[in-house]
Amino acid sequence: MAHDEFSLIRQWTSRSAGQEGNGLTVGIGDDAAVFSPAPEMEVVACCDAMVETVHFLKKTMNPSDIGYKAVISNVSDVAAMGGIARYALVSIAVSPQWTPDECQQIYEGIYEACQAYGVRVIGGDTVSAPDALHLSVTVLGEVEKGSAIRRSQAKPGQLVFVTGHVGTSAAGLHLLLQGETAERGVSLPWKTLMDAHQRPVAQIKAGRLLLESGACSALNDVSDGLASELWELAEASDVSILVDAATVPIHDEVREYARHVEKDPLEWAFYGGEDYQLVGTLAKSHFEAVSKQFAANGVPFTVIGEVVGKSQEAKLMLQRDDQQLPLPKAGFNHFRSG
Amino acid sequence: MAHDEFSLIRQWTSRSAGQEGNGLTVGIGDDAAVFSPAPEMEVVACCDAMVETVHFLKKTMNPSDIGYKAVISNVSDVAAMGGIARYALVSIAVSPQWTPDECQQIYEGIYEACQAYGVRVIGGDTVSAPDALHLSVTVLGEVEKGSAIRRSQAKPGQLVFVTGHVGTSAAGLHLLLQGETAERGVSLPWKTLMDAHQRPVAQIKAGRLLLESGACSALNDVSDGLASELWELAEASDVSILVDAATVPIHDEVREYARHVEKDPLEWAFYGGEDYQLVGTLAKSHFEAVSKQFAANGVPFTVIGEVVGKSQEAKLMLQRDDQQLPLPKAGFNHFRSG
Repeated sequence: MAHDEFSLIRQWTSRSAGQEGNGLTVGIGDDAAVFSPAPEMEVVACCDAMVETVHFLKKTMNPSDIGYKAVISNVSDVAAMGGIARYALVSIAVSPQWTPDECQQIYEGIYEACQAYGVRVIGGDTVSAPDALHLSVTVLGEVEKGSAIRRSQAKPGQLVFVTGHVGTSAAGLHLLLQGETAERGVSLPWKTLMDAHQRPVAQIKAGRLLLESGACSALNDVSDGLASELWELAEASDVSILVDAATVPIHDEVREYARHVEKDPLEWAFYGGEDYQLVGTLAKSHFEAVSKQFAANGVPFTVIGEVVGKSQEAKLMLQRDDQQLPLPKAGFNHFRSG
Repeated sequence: MAHDEFSLIRQWTSRSAGQEGNGLTVGIGDDAAVFSPAPEMEVVACCDAMVETVHFLKKTMNPSDIGYKAVISNVSDVAAMGGIARYALVSIAVSPQWTPDECQQIYEGIYEACQAYGVRVIGGDTVSAPDALHLSVTVLGEVEKGSAIRRSQAKPGQLVFVTGHVGTSAAGLHLLLQGETAERGVSLPWKTLMDAHQRPVAQIKAGRLLLESGACSALNDVSDGLASELWELAEASDVSILVDAATVPIHDEVREYARHVEKDPLEWAFYGGEDYQLVGTLAKSHFEAVSKQFAANGVPFTVIGEVVGKSQEAKLMLQRDDQQLPLPKAGFNHFRSG
């Protein structure tokens, strides 16, 4: 029995066999993997967990989506340092409610995401769980020595920007929780929303453009909602930030769906999360050059506000119509005590 | 509320703040950590998960032991490559049944183990779980370029050795499941057994001696029981292995406890696991030199068998008294479907 189960795990991870070379000395299948970053590069390391009932439900995510998204959320963290993702370690805890076929599909999603971003699965652990499925992925990447973009160098007078659109994933989740089917490959009226939630895109290209520009002072990925991410930038840099509500990039389909269900799309943007866009700051003098680079590469890039001043206490303010309102931190927070 | 919980997490990981330097460019608190291995070194990466009810119960492990052991099981994997452990990423999923104080103690154990092995916590994820506590740790280490000890180079005629004693952790678990208290710091008749289970030791020193000797052809750590580990060496190297039962190093206290509860201590040694000793093979011509090195460093080292031949199908045999018996693979296996 144990033997059969080991065979199953081997089958799930079979695509990782024989992937040595190009910096990887020992791949999956030994006590540990061994690799070297390129001589001019440092290693970037991050880790994100997804838990059934907390981060997803079977009704909101197909098994392959769960695997896909667990990889993306980590690749996104590497993007937020300006790096490139290289390797993944996958720790999965499976309960008896999950069939071998569903587990196979989770791995299909993991490998699909890995292939899309040039990542190799080099290790991990497969264990049983009493109930909820847990998936914890570590992604290791590379960034040029001394060039990683931190979140703590935002300066007064700098512009605040965000890539792509925000709030789309939260709108997708809202839709899926209404009972919209999670089946993939079906043409649906709100396909952009569902895809944003189930198959998010990590902004590696945007991160690389920002690193190469040398213009970006502070950068985060939008995993916990724009408000939470902007608070992190403000606190790490000891500054205050003013965001202009009218400029926050909301996808047309999200606006339309929001009207349909009578919601404020800005709430999804600020407190939704899992958009995996990049939000950061740069000097006004760099804006035109960076903006052109983004346009040339087809990556949407929007200025949404400004770093308004050095402050004793970090603050986040929202300009909406004629009002300036404080924007509280409490966004989507995975750690709830009950 | 969310704010308070973030404060708690910060408190648990506060000892990791400001640990930059000595290869670490960006520590905990950004999207990802950034580090460089020393120029002559490669990166070693591994990941192990521990799940409540599957790998531990509150009655068998104190919270600090859970954290301690989760780090050790990974440091042990690095030791089995001949490497040195450097960094850890901690992914923890906590259910409402676990108090903030218990979580604090889990982190105490994590930091205690990290300090003992020169490991810095550089990242991770803290999320909530509906029920069982899950702890998944990634450890990143270093090993001299091209020198990592794999498990696939065992050759016919080589000796099979193991460090320290085996079966002690399983005996400790047996004792703890009988209702022995898990409280730490109490003098008990079977303290060696309980310590082996709750506070295992990773064999970094032994791994380094083996790497420096250049004599070790195949190496594993004993996480899943000696039978399972020997099977892995045999299968990865396409050889058969013969173990002499009389030579397997069982601690006197384990023998005494086994008599007391009428168990065969060899069963704990072969199918218990979590001893975190190193088991491997080396050429007979190297034995004396390696043995002296181990003795000089006070690390117990015992020859328990021999690689008996290249075979179409890997085999594991046990010589016990006058009999040779096949030793089946089915050891302690964390992945059970029900």
